[in-house]
Amino acid sequence: MPVTNYLDLLTFDKFIRMNDIKDTFNQPFTRRAFVGAAASLILLPTVQSNAEIHKTNALTVQQVIDIILKNIPVPPIPKTTDTIKAGSPDQIVTGIVTTMFTTIPVIRKAIALKANFIIAHEPTFYNHFDETAWLENDKVWQFKNELLKKNGIAVWRFHDYWHSLEPDGVLMGVLTALGWENYYHTDKPSVITIPTAPLQDIVKRCKEKLGIKHLRVIGDLSQSCTRIGLIPGAAGGRTQMQLLQSEAPDVLLVGESPEWETIEYMRDAQEAKTKQALIVLGHSVSEEPGMNYLVPWLQPKVSGITVTHVPSQDPFQWL
Amino acid sequence: MPVTNYLDLLTFDKFIRMNDIKDTFNQPFTRRAFVGAAASLILLPTVQSNAEIHKTNALTVQQVIDIILKNIPVPPIPKTTDTIKAGSPDQIVTGIVTTMFTTIPVIRKAIALKANFIIAHEPTFYNHFDETAWLENDKVWQFKNELLKKNGIAVWRFHDYWHSLEPDGVLMGVLTALGWENYYHTDKPSVITIPTAPLQDIVKRCKEKLGIKHLRVIGDLSQSCTRIGLIPGAAGGRTQMQLLQSEAPDVLLVGESPEWETIEYMRDAQEAKTKQALIVLGHSVSEEPGMNYLVPWLQPKVSGITVTHVPSQDPFQWL
Repeated sequence: MPVTNYLDLLTFDKFIRMNDIKDTFNQPFTRRAFVGAAASLILLPTVQSNAEIHKTNALTVQQVIDIILKNIPVPPIPKTTDTIKAGSPDQIVTGIVTTMFTTIPVIRKAIALKANFIIAHEPTFYNHFDETAWLENDKVWQFKNELLKKNGIAVWRFHDYWHSLEPDGVLMGVLTALGWENYYHTDKPSVITIPTAPLQDIVKRCKEKLGIKHLRVIGDLSQSCTRIGLIPGAAGGRTQMQLLQSEAPDVLLVGESPEWETIEYMRDAQEAKTKQALIVLGHSVSEEPGMNYLVPWLQPKVSGITVTHVPSQDPFQWL
Repeated sequence: MPVTNYLDLLTFDKFIRMNDIKDTFNQPFTRRAFVGAAASLILLPTVQSNAEIHKTNALTVQQVIDIILKNIPVPPIPKTTDTIKAGSPDQIVTGIVTTMFTTIPVIRKAIALKANFIIAHEPTFYNHFDETAWLENDKVWQFKNELLKKNGIAVWRFHDYWHSLEPDGVLMGVLTALGWENYYHTDKPSVITIPTAPLQDIVKRCKEKLGIKHLRVIGDLSQSCTRIGLIPGAAGGRTQMQLLQSEAPDVLLVGESPEWETIEYMRDAQEAKTKQALIVLGHSVSEEPGMNYLVPWLQPKVSGITVTHVPSQDPFQWL
């Protein structure tokens, strides 16, 4: 289970850096500098040829990963899920697509964009650590694996480290999409205080601002909400319930939740009159703004490579 | 996670019977015999007084559990979840309520029915093994616990053993509710073959026969379905996907599913054209027929005690 437990990420018991950060990529490339250099090619002759600029800005998959990790000043995360799932660390990146799940439509869109590197927040192969031994004879895995191979697409998961940035990249993406970024506080990142609004307005805001067509709610829609708990993704029932206990938010927003845990707790909470509500947004759509938020963060660090967000969207037909 | 993995239940590595079965409860009580005895009290004088009949038919919580377990001829299940969650094993049972989740409305209904024993399929306290140490200062837990105590309600979970009966009690309840009980085969209990129908008809049948107002689907609604996979409840993504691999059902019905596992697998399966679909029914409503099915199975074994099913229903508002 992809436990997005922010506390856990801070209790490292090992300090083994997954990837050494190469000093050669410590040079400060910015998009502005690159655009300036490109413009100078048109306006006047320079000593730097087009090919040389390409070479200067050419980065491998591993080099892009190293640039990202260098910009997240946390100790190495042991047993991280953030590993390469497809492609080679040595391939030159032609373009980057950010997304929540590497779905087939996302892969096809990357191919159309001539982007050969997908940075996805969640697993590619249907389990937290992307184990594939059990999938070798599986037609779905074969289809996806071949599509990735045939088109030379690399996939890297960016989960643990993106969550461990301060502020958490996913959380800030979601807060920004909701128009609540100014309510963020470093000491209690998962709880914000907003001007009081009824639960039904919070639901409406989630649907409009996050582009969610269907969601599930437990609570009184007329109830006033000021303290909002935010745990996008699938943090697990215990983490969700402990936030409800310790921070007493009026409403908790989650991606998904085991129904025998948080869902039943919240059902009982209605009868116990704790005046707390729950909005289940759906896993994919709940964290998608965090991978959109990655674009402006990453783009200046990899000038010359276009970074595009392709949302993986809601997987369901709601009937 | 309440793993409803039928295979796991057959691979017992320990043989410690949770409760000894008392021979004194091996006597064949039937509802017919009890009704006959009760009627005789009205029609003619008998040597047996009302109090004596009550005494004869009086059973404690533990005795009811023992009767149930005696009727499920499987080796003891190690580390079973099927333990008493509230009340005393020694209290005399005044009535039995069966349900999926011991919600507050279910408890209130039991009180109204003067039934002091709830047999629930799923946890009472929001985690698989009903650990409560982390809940001691929790207002929701306190409210529920006090309501149960104040009204002398005992709760026993009946999960592992009900699933390990042949045929599986939950599965047969669901099949019967769907009108598909005649398609059951002992050798492959989780897959049935029905007359071909489009997926949209299967969805309609689930909604009508199981009383489900909202569900979520991945698949082509016009696709023909003949082989139906059934894993009600929350069996876990790997179990669900392995059934999709090994038995290749046209559609799989589940209670709930981790979205980064089975849901994304099925999303990719649509693009890989495996012609398989998924219906996510919701955990509570997916297994509820199994606890309704328990009533006619249990009633003849505890004559004199009324067994009533009280559904715990869908916890969500779908917005």
